[in-house]
Amino acid sequence: MAGFLGYVFSHFQSTANTTKMAGQTNGLEKRNKYLENSKEDFLYHFGFGVATLDLPKVFGDTKFVCTGGSPGRFKLYAEWFAKECNIPCSENLSKSDRFVIYKTGPVCWINHGMGTPSLSIMLIEALKLMHHAKAENVTFIRLGTSGGVGVEPGTVVVTTEAMNAELSDKHIQVIAGKRIERPTQLDENLRLELCELAALKNIPVVTGKTMCADDFYEGQMRLDGYFCDYKEEDKFAFLEKLYNLGVRNIEMESTCFASFTHRAGHRSAIVCVTLLNRMNGDQVKIEKEKYVEYEERPFRLVTALIRKQLAI
Amino acid sequence: MAGFLGYVFSHFQSTANTTKMAGQTNGLEKRNKYLENSKEDFLYHFGFGVATLDLPKVFGDTKFVCTGGSPGRFKLYAEWFAKECNIPCSENLSKSDRFVIYKTGPVCWINHGMGTPSLSIMLIEALKLMHHAKAENVTFIRLGTSGGVGVEPGTVVVTTEAMNAELSDKHIQVIAGKRIERPTQLDENLRLELCELAALKNIPVVTGKTMCADDFYEGQMRLDGYFCDYKEEDKFAFLEKLYNLGVRNIEMESTCFASFTHRAGHRSAIVCVTLLNRMNGDQVKIEKEKYVEYEERPFRLVTALIRKQLAI
Repeated sequence: MAGFLGYVFSHFQSTANTTKMAGQTNGLEKRNKYLENSKEDFLYHFGFGVATLDLPKVFGDTKFVCTGGSPGRFKLYAEWFAKECNIPCSENLSKSDRFVIYKTGPVCWINHGMGTPSLSIMLIEALKLMHHAKAENVTFIRLGTSGGVGVEPGTVVVTTEAMNAELSDKHIQVIAGKRIERPTQLDENLRLELCELAALKNIPVVTGKTMCADDFYEGQMRLDGYFCDYKEEDKFAFLEKLYNLGVRNIEMESTCFASFTHRAGHRSAIVCVTLLNRMNGDQVKIEKEKYVEYEERPFRLVTALIRKQLAI
Repeated sequence: MAGFLGYVFSHFQSTANTTKMAGQTNGLEKRNKYLENSKEDFLYHFGFGVATLDLPKVFGDTKFVCTGGSPGRFKLYAEWFAKECNIPCSENLSKSDRFVIYKTGPVCWINHGMGTPSLSIMLIEALKLMHHAKAENVTFIRLGTSGGVGVEPGTVVVTTEAMNAELSDKHIQVIAGKRIERPTQLDENLRLELCELAALKNIPVVTGKTMCADDFYEGQMRLDGYFCDYKEEDKFAFLEKLYNLGVRNIEMESTCFASFTHRAGHRSAIVCVTLLNRMNGDQVKIEKEKYVEYEERPFRLVTALIRKQLAI
């Protein structure tokens, strides 16, 4: 029921420019009532909790949570950002080996692994972290890599909506054995601002839907997996269908990211660079130097936005 | 269609003691025909491929692939095994930061991250790796942690079948926008042998179904997530229902692991220790020392089996 009501309500809110407090519910859902009474909440996959770390002191000033799959890339992003802004970069604050967490002033860098289940664990614990830390007005941005659909490698896709593997713009959860579908919209103003900034910085950008697949091979109709029960023409028909539905890239986290951040009342955006055009192949075949430059693009774009918004 | 035929066929095969070659199809599915012609197959998330590493030389002797979520735990497991068997432990053979890969003689240790999407990437690339390396008779074993359903913390659950979040014993994939369901059975003889060995080694063991959830919080009806639209009594009703369906633990990878290994014709087993009894709580609250001892149990059991079978 919450999912359905959430969808109806959010439909009318979708283009409104709302600024919400991180600690506030957004009218769609009440935050977990069990959480309010917890004095010992332990964020298991971060390896620390309310009772083991002064969360308001360490995380209370957070204004942006930047996230993406790879732990190594997020360490690098944090270090680059610290250097550019001439502010210190924390050590890895995570006390578990499941995720890495770096902090550079008001920006948190947390990796999320691959796929919506891994992302969902990170996001729930990051939302709880922001709540316990009493951080306000926190924006969540996913900076990722993806496969392009009809766009040139190196293009940065800023997502309008996330589409699931069943080709609807919903995040599907199964709770107590029942399917619940929730909307996957992202902040309209943030998206437009990112697109404008990309143009200013000469970063090739498109905006469109992002398909969220549940696996890298069959779910994305790759021909180079271990299993492949479909034919090459089925793959191209599928990619063509996606393109006609407005999809410009495929990754594995967008529906959950959009749904959870929206449901929690946080502004959010998804900014992914494409490493190949799936219309032309399945394997990533780019020179190391070009690969590194492509990986930098979401970082350059998102940090331009952060520095502008925070005036740092 | 393949899923349906696979299920019917495998139903009659489920208790047969079949020994299959890693390079052979098992009658259920033809291996990917596109793979046969590939001289450049690059295992993107391992960071190496056919053209960059002598795969038969490094991986050709593999007889067991042991896998589980945490990279740190799998490094430790590999080091322990090497020490126990007095054989060398390789460095981390992965050239990407997505997974770690260690090799100790005929045993490969690869972590898979959290959730079926992350696992599916690792498994597909591990299956391709075993194929390219010409490894034969490879057994796959998942050694994990889990939440117990009506069993004491520290109990090792050896899985009979994996059940999905919709409560059917199937792995659900969405390919080209269509749902495909495949069986999640595991090797019966391997399971019984593991249970016998556990008794011999005084490791508390039960055998039953494992539920595979798509997230850690709402999907497992935890009350301590950021969102919680259900009540405490709904949680207990759900856990009770799972128990009555034969479920003894909950984790996040079993359906995909069982389905992919079965479909590829490899013997496989899932051996997870429970870190808590979900009937009594949601947070893992055990002393560090006990935690380490619990984490060792799947390792002690699985390596006893490996050393017995390989006579090392």
